[in-house]
Amino acid sequence: MMMNDIVLVGFGGHAKSVADCIEREGKYHIVGYTDMREADSRYSYLGTDDELHTIFGGGVKNAAIGIGYMGKGAVRQHLYATLKQIGFYLPVITDPSAIVSNTAVVGEGTFIGKCAVINAEASIGKMAIINTKALIEHECVVDDFSHVAVGAVLCGQVKVGEGAFIGANSTVIQCRQIESNAIVPAGATIR
Amino acid sequence: MMMNDIVLVGFGGHAKSVADCIEREGKYHIVGYTDMREADSRYSYLGTDDELHTIFGGGVKNAAIGIGYMGKGAVRQHLYATLKQIGFYLPVITDPSAIVSNTAVVGEGTFIGKCAVINAEASIGKMAIINTKALIEHECVVDDFSHVAVGAVLCGQVKVGEGAFIGANSTVIQCRQIESNAIVPAGATIR
Amino acid sequence: MMMNDIVLVGFGGHAKSVADCIEREGKYHIVGYTDMREADSRYSYLGTDDELHTIFGGGVKNAAIGIGYMGKGAVRQHLYATLKQIGFYLPVITDPSAIVSNTAVVGEGTFIGKCAVINAEASIGKMAIINTKALIEHECVVDDFSHVAVGAVLCGQVKVGEGAFIGANSTVIQCRQIESNAIVPAGATIR
Repeated sequence: MMMNDIVLVGFGGHAKSVADCIEREGKYHIVGYTDMREADSRYSYLGTDDELHTIFGGGVKNAAIGIGYMGKGAVRQHLYATLKQIGFYLPVITDPSAIVSNTAVVGEGTFIGKCAVINAEASIGKMAIINTKALIEHECVVDDFSHVAVGAVLCGQVKVGEGAFIGANSTVIQCRQIESNAIVPAGATIR
Repeated sequence: MMMNDIVLVGFGGHAKSVADCIEREGKYHIVGYTDMREADSRYSYLGTDDELHTIFGGGVKNAAIGIGYMGKGAVRQHLYATLKQIGFYLPVITDPSAIVSNTAVVGEGTFIGKCAVINAEASIGKMAIINTKALIEHECVVDDFSHVAVGAVLCGQVKVGEGAFIGANSTVIQCRQIESNAIVPAGATIR
Repeated sequence: MMMNDIVLVGFGGHAKSVADCIEREGKYHIVGYTDMREADSRYSYLGTDDELHTIFGGGVKNAAIGIGYMGKGAVRQHLYATLKQIGFYLPVITDPSAIVSNTAVVGEGTFIGKCAVINAEASIGKMAIINTKALIEHECVVDDFSHVAVGAVLCGQVKVGEGAFIGANSTVIQCRQIESNAIVPAGATIR
């Protein structure tokens, strides 16, 4: 398989998880990362986001956003707009251990971490994070820019609005609706 | 591998998950489903359960029950009796990503979802649901018609009585006993 | 692959899970177990721990500790010291279904159960238990003799002190620190 180059945009802890999945997936070669400053990273620092035009011009057409923390949803939306304007393609990053049903759909730029499961007829928007071991059950709808944190469980037919944050190991029972930009705390159960 | 025909009996959201696992397993070909009325489904509607005799007579010897919701345990038991009387075989459905220890035993007609784990020397009865990402630890005993919901965690040597419902992402610590037909709420911890 | 002999030291319920993973891993052949008395086990009883010198002298150079319960951390530390004094090697036991990032490090004698995930740049000490379906996120540090119980979720950059117990299906949010020998109850959320 030919490997395509990809740049990580923003480098924090989440980026280490994303980079690990990119390497395990084996579809893209990480050329480095941009950020406001150099970070603790095994990858090359390529400068601030002002360099993204130059990076794209140099032949790197793929980007992945490495910022995942709660409360930074607006940053992710802004970065997405910037990257699209330049022309970048934001592939879905799926760890090989994740399971995505053949009848599920997943939007552009979404990250699906290790051992995450997206079950039958679920629909995931663009630029979402379905983090490590998260479970999206049958017929769930998760809107753009949402972040389903590690180990969170969405039962069947749950709807998650745009930009919502579903906390670590929390539970949303079947058919419930989480509003846009809502935050479900870690460990909580939404009945 | 020769594929055998199977009919889905009852078609709700849970059936979509079951059908997905049957297709991933690749052992059976789904000929369609029976239900009180036609459902939102990619499969053929074969009529009400009154048609099951005819379906069996037509050569479809395998059945899987597609009804999984809490509070419908009695329906599952009734359907099971009906199907057995006609002569149907109810195979264990195990998603390829599930792990069942070689020293565990699993009864007829039980469904084991994606990424579920059944650990050493556990014993699962017939017609149980061990749903997506559920964990049944070593030496647990889960009786007939029980439903261990998505992401639920049974620690070692837990006993679950017949027809009990263990809610989504709930936890039962080691050696506890859950009575027949009991309901453990989603997210609860039984200490 | 040549199989090396291994002895299980202490045989309770946890040992059944450990033994199952050893067999699934296929690197070692279990010659039997030592314990204070004969247990309910498919393996040969080799006598009390007083026999360990003789077993080692007879050519069995590898050992795995089969005691995992909460509150027995001191027993595990004592056994470890005894085994090292005799000369035993305590391999890392990793179930084939577990995922350990290439950038994570894992110390001697640690057990990593079925479907456990250890993410990027995490660091696990020696003789720890990362039990079935536990999640250790990016950059976590889990010290020696800690036990992260089944289904527990450590978010990114969590630190767990020596000998701590993180209960079943509990959650520790990002960047928190759990003190040495602390106990996080099953199902709890540490915010």
